[in-house]
Amino acid sequence: MQVAFALYRGFTALDVIGPFQVLADTPGHDAVLVAAEAGPVVDHTGRAPLVAAKAFSEVPAPDIIIVPGGRTGVLDNRLVEWIRAVHPATTWTTSVCTGSIYLATAGLLDGVDATTHWAWAERLNELGAHYLADRVVERGKIITAAGVSSGIDMALVLLDRLYGPVVAQSAQLAIEYDPQPPFDAGSPAKAPAAITDLVRPRLSPTSEWANTLPDD
Amino acid sequence: MQVAFALYRGFTALDVIGPFQVLADTPGHDAVLVAAEAGPVVDHTGRAPLVAAKAFSEVPAPDIIIVPGGRTGVLDNRLVEWIRAVHPATTWTTSVCTGSIYLATAGLLDGVDATTHWAWAERLNELGAHYLADRVVERGKIITAAGVSSGIDMALVLLDRLYGPVVAQSAQLAIEYDPQPPFDAGSPAKAPAAITDLVRPRLSPTSEWANTLPDD
Repeated sequence: MQVAFALYRGFTALDVIGPFQVLADTPGHDAVLVAAEAGPVVDHTGRAPLVAAKAFSEVPAPDIIIVPGGRTGVLDNRLVEWIRAVHPATTWTTSVCTGSIYLATAGLLDGVDATTHWAWAERLNELGAHYLADRVVERGKIITAAGVSSGIDMALVLLDRLYGPVVAQSAQLAIEYDPQPPFDAGSPAKAPAAITDLVRPRLSPTSEWANTLPDD
Repeated sequence: MQVAFALYRGFTALDVIGPFQVLADTPGHDAVLVAAEAGPVVDHTGRAPLVAAKAFSEVPAPDIIIVPGGRTGVLDNRLVEWIRAVHPATTWTTSVCTGSIYLATAGLLDGVDATTHWAWAERLNELGAHYLADRVVERGKIITAAGVSSGIDMALVLLDRLYGPVVAQSAQLAIEYDPQPPFDAGSPAKAPAAITDLVRPRLSPTSEWANTLPDD
């Protein structure tokens, strides 16, 4: 089972490593980090580059793909093309956070229920999808997850679909995923409005952040 | 504010990247991945190397350190020495998962309440600490977190201590940390006993896993 995690300049590291830790530790999984070219790829902070083991051209038929979010105001067309090329033969096509902006741009979400980072809901709809404010949305073989940390939940859902609850629960226990955040501010429905108002403009599709790529 | 994430061969990627995403995205933070030598360091799967920007010798006075867990049956003495050297001047010394085994080995946890991955509780006590089955344990300037995913919760607690609830809640909302795992099996107190019995021998201090370092 080849599980391919797509990288591009400006990706968010936790979007990748959350589901990676769940799926790469599963017996029988061949996890591979993949990008337009093999080698280091700069994350959105510029401080946690991940190393692509293979180029897109070397991974033409992955069983599962995970497309992370990041500074997706500008998209890498090579990733869009790779998604289009591999999706027809995948078992599961998944995204975390604004990775769904890539799926939508590749034409996979036309009229399809999907989710993304809460600040990108309108943009996802503009691209033809139907945004749901759920943490994990499964439609056919496409699973989209909400912002950043939701990739962990998504990967556990995926393990359950693939192998059933014993494997999924074992993975959850192995990473001691018994969340106890010190605040209950993880979504706009729960956070104080003032916090949402503070964060939204920083991360929105038109923000400087989303439209600026980090240096090497 | 220099925030240093320690790497060593066999570290667990999510132990690093969970708190990294919270702390590196905080304005005014200079996040740096650090290891015995600068350059790529292989994680416990061998599939997600992270790149140390600096060697330990180049980071002699970090404000905050985060020591991740991993295959800590065998320890890297260079990290133990670095922890001993930098701890007296840190503002906060923290660990995720079996990173606390490193803190204990460095002599920081003698008689001190601390936590670790649930499968390593006895080992932590053998090293002189007093294990608590809590997700985040704060004692003076030392904060230890439980297994793997708990580093996210720990980093949010740390942000609250440093800057108060507005900054911590903003970080939580930015990464949409509104956990909804599909099962409630994230700790031995909650998982079915059969699941715990399955996972424990795979990850324990005497397991092959914990005592084998991955290849490059």
